[in-house]
Amino acid sequence: MIELLQGSVCPFRFEVLHRSSRSKARVGRIYTSHGIIDTPGFVAVGTNGAIKGVDHHFTNEMGLQLMFCNTYHLLVQPGLDVIRKRGGLHHWTGRKGPLITDSGGFQIFSLAYGSVTSELKSRGHKKTGTGVLKITEEGVLFRSYRDGSPLLLTPESSVLAQKVLQSDIIIPLDELPPYHTDTQSLRESLERTHRWEKRSLDEHLKQINGQAMYAVVHGGVDHALREKSAKVLRELPFDGFAIGGSVGKTRQEMIEMLMHTLDFLPEFLPRHLLGVGDLPSLQACIPLGLDTFDSSYPTKAARHGYLFTQQGALKLKSTQVRLSEKPIEEGCNCFTCQRYTLSYLQHLWKAKELTSYTLLSLHNLHFMVTLMERYRKAIFDNQI
Amino acid sequence: MIELLQGSVCPFRFEVLHRSSRSKARVGRIYTSHGIIDTPGFVAVGTNGAIKGVDHHFTNEMGLQLMFCNTYHLLVQPGLDVIRKRGGLHHWTGRKGPLITDSGGFQIFSLAYGSVTSELKSRGHKKTGTGVLKITEEGVLFRSYRDGSPLLLTPESSVLAQKVLQSDIIIPLDELPPYHTDTQSLRESLERTHRWEKRSLDEHLKQINGQAMYAVVHGGVDHALREKSAKVLRELPFDGFAIGGSVGKTRQEMIEMLMHTLDFLPEFLPRHLLGVGDLPSLQACIPLGLDTFDSSYPTKAARHGYLFTQQGALKLKSTQVRLSEKPIEEGCNCFTCQRYTLSYLQHLWKAKELTSYTLLSLHNLHFMVTLMERYRKAIFDNQI
Repeated sequence: MIELLQGSVCPFRFEVLHRSSRSKARVGRIYTSHGIIDTPGFVAVGTNGAIKGVDHHFTNEMGLQLMFCNTYHLLVQPGLDVIRKRGGLHHWTGRKGPLITDSGGFQIFSLAYGSVTSELKSRGHKKTGTGVLKITEEGVLFRSYRDGSPLLLTPESSVLAQKVLQSDIIIPLDELPPYHTDTQSLRESLERTHRWEKRSLDEHLKQINGQAMYAVVHGGVDHALREKSAKVLRELPFDGFAIGGSVGKTRQEMIEMLMHTLDFLPEFLPRHLLGVGDLPSLQACIPLGLDTFDSSYPTKAARHGYLFTQQGALKLKSTQVRLSEKPIEEGCNCFTCQRYTLSYLQHLWKAKELTSYTLLSLHNLHFMVTLMERYRKAIFDNQI
Repeated sequence: MIELLQGSVCPFRFEVLHRSSRSKARVGRIYTSHGIIDTPGFVAVGTNGAIKGVDHHFTNEMGLQLMFCNTYHLLVQPGLDVIRKRGGLHHWTGRKGPLITDSGGFQIFSLAYGSVTSELKSRGHKKTGTGVLKITEEGVLFRSYRDGSPLLLTPESSVLAQKVLQSDIIIPLDELPPYHTDTQSLRESLERTHRWEKRSLDEHLKQINGQAMYAVVHGGVDHALREKSAKVLRELPFDGFAIGGSVGKTRQEMIEMLMHTLDFLPEFLPRHLLGVGDLPSLQACIPLGLDTFDSSYPTKAARHGYLFTQQGALKLKSTQVRLSEKPIEEGCNCFTCQRYTLSYLQHLWKAKELTSYTLLSLHNLHFMVTLMERYRKAIFDNQI
């Protein structure tokens, strides 16, 4: 169960409970108006205000403490007016625990450049007709993928949107440069991002409403630029730091960048790694002192029949599970493992039954929750 | 909650608790090894051993007492060997309550002729390359849609398959003639169907194992043939009767056929209407003395945003619900109505979120369960 705090608005606060003697890993707690987030913590992605295949009842039950929603998607459908009139994201969606939203910028730039992954795999191509029309100092002008109308997203309008959403943690508008860009362009983009983040913060501080704002540290894989970004942003009264932009072509490149960057961030504020939550990355990043990680990977993997267990990944398509009376993982107390065998789950998945996506996602999300519990215990015990 | 009986095998039994003084409607109870079925009762369709979008936990909770599975689909995926080795459908799927399975014939003939609905709407066309290869006295030879291999389904093999499935109510093999057929062909088909049903029953009676077998009354919309079918089949020791075959082009045609047919069936045995469960048909058929109805309509309608309420159907696409803070139906105590507003549900559905199909199906199935409760009460009160 998620732990809710009494009272309506509680100031955002981060508390470090323990620092490992063996690494920079730490156990902490983030306090928000909608509940506590234990760190290191996994953040599930619910782009449209819902995790794919898993409703809030189950995420509440399994103790999934923080959920990530995408402002851009919510602007397009249902539109901000609906969420405003229905009293914010929590009230409208029925989600009880804390929520974090992004600025909307990432999606707009992704539509323009293709996703970072696509680009790195040379699948990306600059789309014409949709996406970014013009980037100016004011903000980013883009075409709505719904009706083609031009829309302007500015630091101020992004923050005002997130005020309507009433998410617990909000993200300032940043520019997302492509991975393959020259240093001069990256430097200019970084400076604009810093100006946009400052404007976002100013807008946020006009009416805090119990919300927190995390800065987004940029600089790609250029260590000097990352250091600069951290140093600029730490001078501003942000409540935490997110590591954004291109984090590298390989995990090793990301780790080296993170090791360098994190040294320049204050120890007493929470650090979030944007869009990274695969298991080897968590193992590598938690000892560096990162606190939260958002990723759609566990649910996406589940829908592809790729299941997490403490003994490693289990592929549901394997002929070995065709007759298995065992649950996905023995000893697991998730909803699915308490009720269904691998044999039946494989059948549902092969038959493309909707319930399979739900049941498998429930398991992988539950695995992430318990994995983070194990990480916290290991840090308390100075084992990592 | 569904009501389970003590002990492992309980003989199938039907008990009429009350007959309306106003119509032929009756309230009854069917006792099976896996629990009780109150009648009139709605039977949910779980073709592949699962209701689309709704897992057994929820159907158990909402008191959905009988579920219909399709033998043909289960033969193709996962294959009978899996279900045999995993101890039957109940054990393998985790479904606690009673199950009914069909013979497999309906799907094979549907693949050959197109569905009855398609045919009636002139959308059907005889497919070549798949479906029925040859119908002989022995059985029906068809091509597997999985790998194209020829398979022979006989009355005996269908019953033996359903013995492996261990369903509570099984259906004998019948021939499904097309709606548009001449009287002579229909008569010949009917006679073959009767011979096949007799062979099915003989096979079933070799080892009953707590299972029941319902005869399938045929004859299309030809009243004389329906009468003949009922008279032939009632002489055999079936445990109940299903009304199968083409039931008519219009609801009125179906009602007239049913009024004529039901008179020739014994009053002390249960009667099932195959594949019909829309709300106006239930209203028309319950007063005729039909006891159970299977239909995938409630879940299919839900996925199309068509929601059942006591005030009539609610279309989720309606702009009127965009901002609605109300549940689908006020006073409804289903999982969905207890948690989510129409505004949020409309959004999830428009965004094609998987959870929407689950949440909306849960409501419509719950509606069917409570609708049948209201019917039973109305019959007890002699109001219908």
